[in-house]
Amino acid sequence: MTSGPPLTALSSADSLAVPPMRDRLQGIFPPIPTTFDSTSGDVNERAISANVRRWMDTGLAGVLTLGSNGEAGSLDEDESDRVVAAVRAEMPRNRTLLVGTGRESTRATIRATTRAAALGADAVLVRTPSYFKAQMTTDALVTHFRAVADASPIPILLYNLPGVTGITLTVPIVAALAEHANIVGMKETSPELERLGQCVQLVNGRFAVLSGWAPVAYPALVSGAAGAILAVANVLPAECVSLLELTRAGRHAEAIALQRRLTPIAQLVSSVHGVAGLKLALELRGFHGGPVRGPLLPPSSEARAVIAQALSQFDR
Amino acid sequence: MTSGPPLTALSSADSLAVPPMRDRLQGIFPPIPTTFDSTSGDVNERAISANVRRWMDTGLAGVLTLGSNGEAGSLDEDESDRVVAAVRAEMPRNRTLLVGTGRESTRATIRATTRAAALGADAVLVRTPSYFKAQMTTDALVTHFRAVADASPIPILLYNLPGVTGITLTVPIVAALAEHANIVGMKETSPELERLGQCVQLVNGRFAVLSGWAPVAYPALVSGAAGAILAVANVLPAECVSLLELTRAGRHAEAIALQRRLTPIAQLVSSVHGVAGLKLALELRGFHGGPVRGPLLPPSSEARAVIAQALSQFDR
Amino acid sequence: MTSGPPLTALSSADSLAVPPMRDRLQGIFPPIPTTFDSTSGDVNERAISANVRRWMDTGLAGVLTLGSNGEAGSLDEDESDRVVAAVRAEMPRNRTLLVGTGRESTRATIRATTRAAALGADAVLVRTPSYFKAQMTTDALVTHFRAVADASPIPILLYNLPGVTGITLTVPIVAALAEHANIVGMKETSPELERLGQCVQLVNGRFAVLSGWAPVAYPALVSGAAGAILAVANVLPAECVSLLELTRAGRHAEAIALQRRLTPIAQLVSSVHGVAGLKLALELRGFHGGPVRGPLLPPSSEARAVIAQALSQFDR
Amino acid sequence: MTSGPPLTALSSADSLAVPPMRDRLQGIFPPIPTTFDSTSGDVNERAISANVRRWMDTGLAGVLTLGSNGEAGSLDEDESDRVVAAVRAEMPRNRTLLVGTGRESTRATIRATTRAAALGADAVLVRTPSYFKAQMTTDALVTHFRAVADASPIPILLYNLPGVTGITLTVPIVAALAEHANIVGMKETSPELERLGQCVQLVNGRFAVLSGWAPVAYPALVSGAAGAILAVANVLPAECVSLLELTRAGRHAEAIALQRRLTPIAQLVSSVHGVAGLKLALELRGFHGGPVRGPLLPPSSEARAVIAQALSQFDR
Repeated sequence: MTSGPPLTALSSADSLAVPPMRDRLQGIFPPIPTTFDSTSGDVNERAISANVRRWMDTGLAGVLTLGSNGEAGSLDEDESDRVVAAVRAEMPRNRTLLVGTGRESTRATIRATTRAAALGADAVLVRTPSYFKAQMTTDALVTHFRAVADASPIPILLYNLPGVTGITLTVPIVAALAEHANIVGMKETSPELERLGQCVQLVNGRFAVLSGWAPVAYPALVSGAAGAILAVANVLPAECVSLLELTRAGRHAEAIALQRRLTPIAQLVSSVHGVAGLKLALELRGFHGGPVRGPLLPPSSEARAVIAQALSQFDR
Repeated sequence: MTSGPPLTALSSADSLAVPPMRDRLQGIFPPIPTTFDSTSGDVNERAISANVRRWMDTGLAGVLTLGSNGEAGSLDEDESDRVVAAVRAEMPRNRTLLVGTGRESTRATIRATTRAAALGADAVLVRTPSYFKAQMTTDALVTHFRAVADASPIPILLYNLPGVTGITLTVPIVAALAEHANIVGMKETSPELERLGQCVQLVNGRFAVLSGWAPVAYPALVSGAAGAILAVANVLPAECVSLLELTRAGRHAEAIALQRRLTPIAQLVSSVHGVAGLKLALELRGFHGGPVRGPLLPPSSEARAVIAQALSQFDR
Repeated sequence: MTSGPPLTALSSADSLAVPPMRDRLQGIFPPIPTTFDSTSGDVNERAISANVRRWMDTGLAGVLTLGSNGEAGSLDEDESDRVVAAVRAEMPRNRTLLVGTGRESTRATIRATTRAAALGADAVLVRTPSYFKAQMTTDALVTHFRAVADASPIPILLYNLPGVTGITLTVPIVAALAEHANIVGMKETSPELERLGQCVQLVNGRFAVLSGWAPVAYPALVSGAAGAILAVANVLPAECVSLLELTRAGRHAEAIALQRRLTPIAQLVSSVHGVAGLKLALELRGFHGGPVRGPLLPPSSEARAVIAQALSQFDR
Repeated sequence: MTSGPPLTALSSADSLAVPPMRDRLQGIFPPIPTTFDSTSGDVNERAISANVRRWMDTGLAGVLTLGSNGEAGSLDEDESDRVVAAVRAEMPRNRTLLVGTGRESTRATIRATTRAAALGADAVLVRTPSYFKAQMTTDALVTHFRAVADASPIPILLYNLPGVTGITLTVPIVAALAEHANIVGMKETSPELERLGQCVQLVNGRFAVLSGWAPVAYPALVSGAAGAILAVANVLPAECVSLLELTRAGRHAEAIALQRRLTPIAQLVSSVHGVAGLKLALELRGFHGGPVRGPLLPPSSEARAVIAQALSQFDR
């Protein structure tokens, strides 16, 4: 397994070194949490920087910051900007920085996107607005994403997470948006592979789909996903990169065996215990974890025991 | 029908004039929209002020600002503050100003609550956080609302709107929170009356429940609701106040007849056409309406015709 | 409180004694359970007869048999017929026998309806088919109910129970069907009163809506429901009849107080413990209860204690 | 591609010819529709026989009769038996006959299972009861399936179809049931692969999982599914068998290309147009199709055109 992207990417002049966005999405990205100070509860940029440096020592293609696992909804705009700046500062140019910039209004989404681009984001991930569910028609969603894509100086990825938002980006909506030159892909955060299998075929396969559901990462990859954005990749980056490489190499038996080893811990740090579970697991692996912001609660001692036990399977 | 609260409230010294919050919630409140400038899309405080002055000429008990109909999620913190200040400036001391201050984090909710209090809010309405649905356990919700109530200088009302948030404040959660001295009531935004009927009995009836679903306002009131927060009360304030008064006076046949007249237009300006429908209806009644912010779309010409037709039933 | 329907109904010739179906639906109906033998698990017609005789000593307008609480889905066609015959035999002509005859196919529903009519049913209650959810369009549902109504020798009532079936009879569907001469009303089994409030106005109020949700029975009645079909009316028939009579007499304070007394036990014998809870409560009140059929489980000892405690509030 | 199961299975004495059930589930099964006479609407056994003979000329491992696509809920018990008998008569001993025998009660499910076994079923597929949703606890479901498995003379398969029933067989429920010697597998009818990936590992992989969702058949197979029960396999049996064989042979690029060709027609004959679409497609391919039973509606002319167009891609 490599501990970084292909060397060719580093060997030439900078302007040549960075391939088009579509190629840069072929990989594993952790949706990194935002580390808070245990005492003040403020954003702890030093801890974030330290984490990012460690992630950059692995074969991860880049990181997503300010996603769900980044508790983006619990940060104010100033905090958001500081997190992006801190992360970018630790990332080489040839690693891809994705930033979550979805807001409830089109106007605020555009502003957040513009700021993220100015701070060095390579692309942004824009979740569906969802407050006015009854009004989030196909027309409303297509209009929203097109307006953001028109205004954004950098490529955008759609973010479908129906379990959180109650809104689904259907295949017809995605197909309409995939025609936009500045919309280069999507993150599909659900265990359903029917939609993913259809979206990977859009615009002749030039639309990149990233899976956001670790327990189906292997079947998503064999179904055509370009890569994956996985909470568990924060904790076990090498193993997640290995899953992708085994699959690409056609070593399916090994890939499925690794998928099965990863599923239990992946569930614990996402659907079961959420961000609190993820931060705890990071601490157990020597990263900075720190507290979650309310309304999230700290993990119970039972959660701690279960996560420690699951992680111990991966000790070297 | 009176065109304001009881005169006794005005006749004595100010400190005596304002009854306890529980009594002040006995009435009809419009959840007022935030008026935006048609050209710039910015908050139009002059238009908001003009609207509030007109509402103050009716028997409304007060207003709710920065609720769902206020497109609160599409405003930044500075805009939010300016709206609250503009509204308060037009409201006499004895009219009740409710402000929506729910945010996704406990920390941001407390900050918004503190600012609203400083700007003259009489009480705040705090919606359930909902992003991390799987983690919004009874414990998490009770802890969140208690923290906000502890920190708030003014009384708080819980805001249950399961259709929007996917989170339900169950009767046991409400019962636990109703014991808190600074939690004085709730807004129940659903057509279900089972929960409302149980919540009105909490703490020996000292917990005020406001209905937020106009088509069931009459049955909610006879079931013990203290009052109601109704989008249609923006457009037809006198009629909504009349509904409350007829019900209290035991004139049930007239009340139910009025309910039936109000239901169609109430549906058009809420569930059917949302805030865009509400703003359009306001314009048709001579108020300032103005555009909605994306991702909401402007009303179709068909919506315009239907709303105009429904409103024409109420012309004098 | 009367112990039966108005005497006038009994005083004249039989053909005159029975008013039109719409009037006969003005009242309280228990959805009676099907009593099974504790040893063999077979239908126990003697026990059913004994129960019906007791119910006929109260002011109940009639009964519903083979509804959800009758475990209709767990009976074969022969058992169903025997239950209907046993119930009818104990009911005077002027009490109304409603029979649940909904099946998954139109064909089977018509057959069950025809048989129920032959066995003496006064009207049938037809639940929405629901297996093929994606295909249960407005067209499919309207076509189904019209076919049943065309074929039925007796009036039919629509049965809306979205919590069980996942299918909703929307107001437009009900409005289309209410025009049919043989469709005289509906049972609305949900805590939502918005739809009920709209359906009671159909065909100039000639369409009878029966509430099927006890905790909102009072607000449903004041909103125009003709009556109610309530599991708790099996256990506390006099109290449920009293709720209707107080409401009709305009004694609202007493009605709402009674509603509040009834709600806890009503929840225990329906949403909380289901048919097993209902049968247990019947035994505690001296009726025949007996076992439930699997997959339902017998009530736990904890359920038994809670139900006994709630019922003790109604001891004379 | 073979046009039937391995010849070895036919070459020896009958008792040796039939491998254990687990091995017999490794394959593709069509959930065959029940053909009705266009005039009378009665079960048309001759047409069913003719269809089965054609299916037996392909490499299908067997068939499922009386599943959702068999309109099982629209058949009476006598019709059900006649269908099973007709199908079995056309199937060689070494092809596997699965029969759907789920009913709403444990008692009726056991009776249907016993009759299916007597009529020659090799195994039965038992869907979750779902009428009393609130009472379908883990305990109730485990007790139900264990009772059926104890009583059944032949192996049973669990049938999870949450989209239809609103009930989910969670991994813990399946794990508990997989320990039962007479429960040999399950059909998972959903696009979610997370649960499937966990169930294939139960009892050391001795628990067979069949996918019931054609658009994810390939990723299900690579994730460990033993085979699949697919509506589209009625229409395109050879292509579906080929999908399985390509996957098993490690020819992943060809398998995924075939999956992509199959997905559009698979959707048309299941989620989009349901059984009516399936029967229409069968007619277009020269099988007997015939009418659906109400409440299902006949396919629209638009559906007919779309299905014909999709099928034309598969003409030889």
